[in-house]
Amino acid sequence: MVVIGIDLGGSAVRLSTVTSAGRLRYSKSVDISARREQRYVLDAIISSIIELITIEKKRGNKVVSIGIGSPGTIDLRKGVVVTSANFKGWKDVPLKKLLEKGVNLPVVLDNDANTAAFGEKWKGAGRKVNSLICLTMGTGIGGGIVLDGDIWHGADGMAGEIGHMTVNPEGPRCNCGNTGCLETYSSATGMVRSAIDSISNGKKTILKQLSERDNNRITAKMIHEAALRGDRLSTEILTEAGKYLGIAMASLINILNPEMVILTGAVTGAWDFFMPSAILEVEKRAYKSLADRTKIVPGKLPGTAGILGAAGLALRQVGT
Amino acid sequence: MVVIGIDLGGSAVRLSTVTSAGRLRYSKSVDISARREQRYVLDAIISSIIELITIEKKRGNKVVSIGIGSPGTIDLRKGVVVTSANFKGWKDVPLKKLLEKGVNLPVVLDNDANTAAFGEKWKGAGRKVNSLICLTMGTGIGGGIVLDGDIWHGADGMAGEIGHMTVNPEGPRCNCGNTGCLETYSSATGMVRSAIDSISNGKKTILKQLSERDNNRITAKMIHEAALRGDRLSTEILTEAGKYLGIAMASLINILNPEMVILTGAVTGAWDFFMPSAILEVEKRAYKSLADRTKIVPGKLPGTAGILGAAGLALRQVGT
Repeated sequence: MVVIGIDLGGSAVRLSTVTSAGRLRYSKSVDISARREQRYVLDAIISSIIELITIEKKRGNKVVSIGIGSPGTIDLRKGVVVTSANFKGWKDVPLKKLLEKGVNLPVVLDNDANTAAFGEKWKGAGRKVNSLICLTMGTGIGGGIVLDGDIWHGADGMAGEIGHMTVNPEGPRCNCGNTGCLETYSSATGMVRSAIDSISNGKKTILKQLSERDNNRITAKMIHEAALRGDRLSTEILTEAGKYLGIAMASLINILNPEMVILTGAVTGAWDFFMPSAILEVEKRAYKSLADRTKIVPGKLPGTAGILGAAGLALRQVGT
Repeated sequence: MVVIGIDLGGSAVRLSTVTSAGRLRYSKSVDISARREQRYVLDAIISSIIELITIEKKRGNKVVSIGIGSPGTIDLRKGVVVTSANFKGWKDVPLKKLLEKGVNLPVVLDNDANTAAFGEKWKGAGRKVNSLICLTMGTGIGGGIVLDGDIWHGADGMAGEIGHMTVNPEGPRCNCGNTGCLETYSSATGMVRSAIDSISNGKKTILKQLSERDNNRITAKMIHEAALRGDRLSTEILTEAGKYLGIAMASLINILNPEMVILTGAVTGAWDFFMPSAILEVEKRAYKSLADRTKIVPGKLPGTAGILGAAGLALRQVGT
């Protein structure tokens, strides 16, 4: 008996069959970076699921349940993707029902930051703790909160929007409409915006050379590379990203007193550049006894946390 | 069968016998504003408990369990008051054990903000919801978080330090060592500090007359009175207190997606002055769907939330 865990991302659908012990078996990935219309993506998911079901069947294994993590606003009760920044045309897509109809198996849908958090809890860095906060630091900043071993969904399944905590009331404008969200400083997008602002203000930086003077080509990865080469502006940007991450973590620690904070996502590649300033803020701002006991660690399942978390939810759904 | 709920405050111990339906029966209050040494306070609590036990006995009722909410840092597992700003000399006081020995009944100890939150959940404004955040706005700002109907204590029983969320990284210094905590703006102490700062900077205000030019006599209540009389500075201070309260509530709503935020404590007397700016910030900063559905309401149990919450914990401790 196995389940399928699915990580629906903006550029690819990735899925695996997973055993009840949390071992990945057969995996598949479909590139959807060029076509993100609902019909196309849905067909890609369904045919991939059927492919994996067939493979497992040949081995004598039955797929009994499916879990999927999706970016965007999820209506948990209805199993609907309300909106998603990654899938512009999507509006109130009943993903759970459509998949259940397509493959005739029970499907559980959750937010992708929640599935990542649950994956890290089940099989990753959070295996031995009961309460953790997982931040996925990529284009945006997603959050998943695990309390008493389970995802805290909130009243409407919308809890964990940690990227949209206000860390500086007078900070830059965020896509969400607020100003000074954590995401405006510590996400890849936030760091790139900061770099472009600084270049426009005449700051010296090798980012100009690296991007061939095309600001649109600047990425967070490029900022990290520049910092590694000693670029001062890039180092400052990463230090600032860490500072505001630390401010957010300090508040989260004071509010929730978790055992662990797990940081995942592409931005964490620059760990050595942003963590010193983050830790400084945590030490300055959180209660000492709480800060001392909260482990702040990188995720242990890069690339698979979401799949495993979705699989874990799928297993639970069928009572395994 | 009844229990006793106790609210240990900086100036008084207040306690009542409470029925399993949450009805207050006999109440007692002991002034401890002049003497807060451990021995004196403990004797006052024990003799008051015994008094209430005796009264109930005469009526044929048995007291079976005791709950107490205390200010300060509480070690829940051990039932110890680690430190408390209200009781300077107290250090690692094993309050649970001492009371159990003194009255020979099971005692449950919790933080006073948690008991207040639990009281509002059980019998107050939060009766019909399962998740709520309760802020007690007085000298400081305490927080209690109720999730799935139960207090969220965190890994060490220290969760809910909402008064020490950073709402402005460059804000005033807080007693906790941080800068820009919610408490530095929206507590009584924070507002008084703000008034004194403004007076020192030469701002005009009738607070000078009301306090007879003695800054030490300025209170939050006086600021509210001055605002009611049209004093501009006082109105600004309350507006600013509301603004930062709103920033904190917006982040809490985005993080936890609660059904309700309950505001209690003396500062809420000035509701009409601080709430407009608070609501403005929530609307600006929280996700619209979350902000729309979160009820922000005053507590319904002024003066008794802590007693009832402690009683509720006492009942649960004996499985009622």
